[in-house]
Amino acid sequence: MKLFFEPETVAEIGATAGPMKPGYSLFQSLQETFGENFFPVNPKLDVIGNKQCYRGILDVPADIDVAVVFIPAAAVPEALEQCGIKGIKRVIIESGGFAEAGAEGLALHERCLAISKKYGMRLWGPNCMGLINVSRMKVLSFMGPMMWKGRFIAGKVSLVVQSGMLSAGFLLHILSKTPFGLSKVCSIGNKMDVDEVDVLEYLVNDPETGVIAMYLESINRGRRFFELAKSTSKPMVVLKSGRTSFGHKAAASHTAALSQDDAVLDHALRQAGVVRVYGMNEMMDVARSFAVTEREPVKKARVAVLSFSGGAGVVCSDDVADYGMELARFSDETLAKMKSVFPAWMEPSNPVDTYPAIEKRGPTEVINVTVEAAMADPGVDAVYVHFFAPFVKIKLYDYDFLESVVKKHKKPMVAWTMGRGEVAAEIRQELESRGICVVDEIAEGVRILAALTMRR
Amino acid sequence: MKLFFEPETVAEIGATAGPMKPGYSLFQSLQETFGENFFPVNPKLDVIGNKQCYRGILDVPADIDVAVVFIPAAAVPEALEQCGIKGIKRVIIESGGFAEAGAEGLALHERCLAISKKYGMRLWGPNCMGLINVSRMKVLSFMGPMMWKGRFIAGKVSLVVQSGMLSAGFLLHILSKTPFGLSKVCSIGNKMDVDEVDVLEYLVNDPETGVIAMYLESINRGRRFFELAKSTSKPMVVLKSGRTSFGHKAAASHTAALSQDDAVLDHALRQAGVVRVYGMNEMMDVARSFAVTEREPVKKARVAVLSFSGGAGVVCSDDVADYGMELARFSDETLAKMKSVFPAWMEPSNPVDTYPAIEKRGPTEVINVTVEAAMADPGVDAVYVHFFAPFVKIKLYDYDFLESVVKKHKKPMVAWTMGRGEVAAEIRQELESRGICVVDEIAEGVRILAALTMRR
Repeated sequence: MKLFFEPETVAEIGATAGPMKPGYSLFQSLQETFGENFFPVNPKLDVIGNKQCYRGILDVPADIDVAVVFIPAAAVPEALEQCGIKGIKRVIIESGGFAEAGAEGLALHERCLAISKKYGMRLWGPNCMGLINVSRMKVLSFMGPMMWKGRFIAGKVSLVVQSGMLSAGFLLHILSKTPFGLSKVCSIGNKMDVDEVDVLEYLVNDPETGVIAMYLESINRGRRFFELAKSTSKPMVVLKSGRTSFGHKAAASHTAALSQDDAVLDHALRQAGVVRVYGMNEMMDVARSFAVTEREPVKKARVAVLSFSGGAGVVCSDDVADYGMELARFSDETLAKMKSVFPAWMEPSNPVDTYPAIEKRGPTEVINVTVEAAMADPGVDAVYVHFFAPFVKIKLYDYDFLESVVKKHKKPMVAWTMGRGEVAAEIRQELESRGICVVDEIAEGVRILAALTMRR
Repeated sequence: MKLFFEPETVAEIGATAGPMKPGYSLFQSLQETFGENFFPVNPKLDVIGNKQCYRGILDVPADIDVAVVFIPAAAVPEALEQCGIKGIKRVIIESGGFAEAGAEGLALHERCLAISKKYGMRLWGPNCMGLINVSRMKVLSFMGPMMWKGRFIAGKVSLVVQSGMLSAGFLLHILSKTPFGLSKVCSIGNKMDVDEVDVLEYLVNDPETGVIAMYLESINRGRRFFELAKSTSKPMVVLKSGRTSFGHKAAASHTAALSQDDAVLDHALRQAGVVRVYGMNEMMDVARSFAVTEREPVKKARVAVLSFSGGAGVVCSDDVADYGMELARFSDETLAKMKSVFPAWMEPSNPVDTYPAIEKRGPTEVINVTVEAAMADPGVDAVYVHFFAPFVKIKLYDYDFLESVVKKHKKPMVAWTMGRGEVAAEIRQELESRGICVVDEIAEGVRILAALTMRR
């Protein structure tokens, strides 16, 4: 796997010049990140821009670590044969039209596999977006530089997505909203040869990867997968679809995934300490939060809820119960600290209705004091703060202080915000850029806290 | 209740001049929407701005339909006494500090009730945001005009929120994101006297209300509540918190709500055809969608899923199964229509992976053709469309056409979008302003479709 993720020389079979074609985006990404160690191949072109192009892979005057193939499915076996003759041992097929596309595609699939065996070649894909090594800024994907240039932040989350378009969507989403630190991003598609176990093995041993997040439609070598999951202390977050009969059927036609008993799988995931998630935003939010506050899991997490709205506090309390956690019981010291900002008639209790205090002392002080008090309480495992987004734009919250409190106490904190859209967006931006995850619906945040504190 | 919602003359007891005080926002809202039929009362002021102010309610030279009280809790009984003498029969108490604030508050609560009985007066609140009649543009709330002026759209959704700050948050959220048509918006707070049953009775009979959405922490007169719910054909959406023991406890300290057996309540809600929701965004999304495509409920809804990503289609198929619906089986006619935009190698099936078609024919045509085909299919009850937000801003989708298709076939449609944030926000804006609800997480949209098609 190391050669796939850390190649020195690459070729593109199917390089094109049409600016709207994905084959051109792939060309640009490889050119941008490999420069003179990149060799494009197209039987009809001598140059693309001012880059020399080769008629066939056999004409390329260098040893190639990885060839990326992006041509119609029917032409792929011949291209692989040539790669084999050239001595290329790693090939990424990004085109679709194989096992997911009926009998004809399945026949192509078999032919490709046979060729790869003959030459001792590993195949990645097909039907995928390829892979990106953010830590080393190598992009082997049809996502063009305009999408990623200057936008990636190197960090410790590695993301594996089975589906091609989905990973493109994921990445665009991450890069254009509040980006978080990534190490490797890849889509494995139909898993003709390389599968999630191969990738997981690499990521578990990759010193640059600290958190592993995976979207999978099937887990083919379950025993080994769960061995690896158990062996690592890196948090793993898995969104496994094809859980239901409808999902199975859809997965089969999408990436030719085989049916699996979901209850068995679910049990194995729990046993292996893998956090199972059910939505894509959830997967990203949990992964990004793990990167900031990774902790040993507890059995039953005790949550402090600080809300500007008594009603939202009630809704949140229900959600805390739903996810098998409990409301923390504050120490006398914590209560005394909070009391200092509350009006005399009000005794703070968990969930803390911060509004009467905010009316009296303003949002900045009240949020600082209550968050700090809750975080410092040894009876608190996690803190959920509801930020009101008022109509008027004033200096509302001391984000730097909140970040320092999270870092000091190393306890997970999530935020929910409601109110004026523009102000809420600003609060979200400030918090997320500091690694504090912000959700739209209260239950989402509770689910994230359950994942972070109890790994479930 | 009619007098509360449709008063001619109003007074504010506790009108203040401090621009940052909620008593001043209330003053402004009443002045703006009642003009000369509004009479502010403050024992220390002769004028607020250039509006004449009265020392006591007894000095007001007019009959008052509704008095709005916004003074410290301890002073409220005396104010009510004066209202009684003046012959005022409807009083809204927006201040807090009553039954939710310990023994002292509870005593005040009892005193207020006794006074109201003596004078045959109905009390609204306390601890609430008051009410807004959007259909007639009357605002009896401490939400000031800068928050709502020029922002309300009159429509048929009426919203009842028990909690004060929550309804303020809700409203700001609705008004600043994509507003939808509202008729009445109110918060009922501690329900000292007027409760959800009184309000529901009014809304069920209110010709301007077409959809009823309620956030409640308790339902006190259950039998009558469920009778009313059963009697109306208007869709009702209820978020009932205090479901769990943590929630109960929090609700008791928030609005002095009594504990109820949630399983019994849940059963009664289903029996009455009420859609129960669990989140605030969900409540708003379901209500706004009902206003556009209200239909007779079906037993098991058949959903068409159109996704740019095979993977998202798989996730969505699982969610469809989770919510007790099924993937629609398309008619031959529908398949033939879809096939016309797909490449030859691909047979469309539900979930439809639109991407191969989009690559060939572009997003506008493919979405138009597939949505129209799915909507026209008698075997389809609802349509879920996934919109890809690409990096490049081009004319992507024909929103007017999509709106016309929804209106023509009167079937619910929801949308999910992923990709570049700015483009996704634009897609959201275009769709939501046409009444098509857009979600961030796939499962949310499925839940909304289940609510809209099966009322659960």
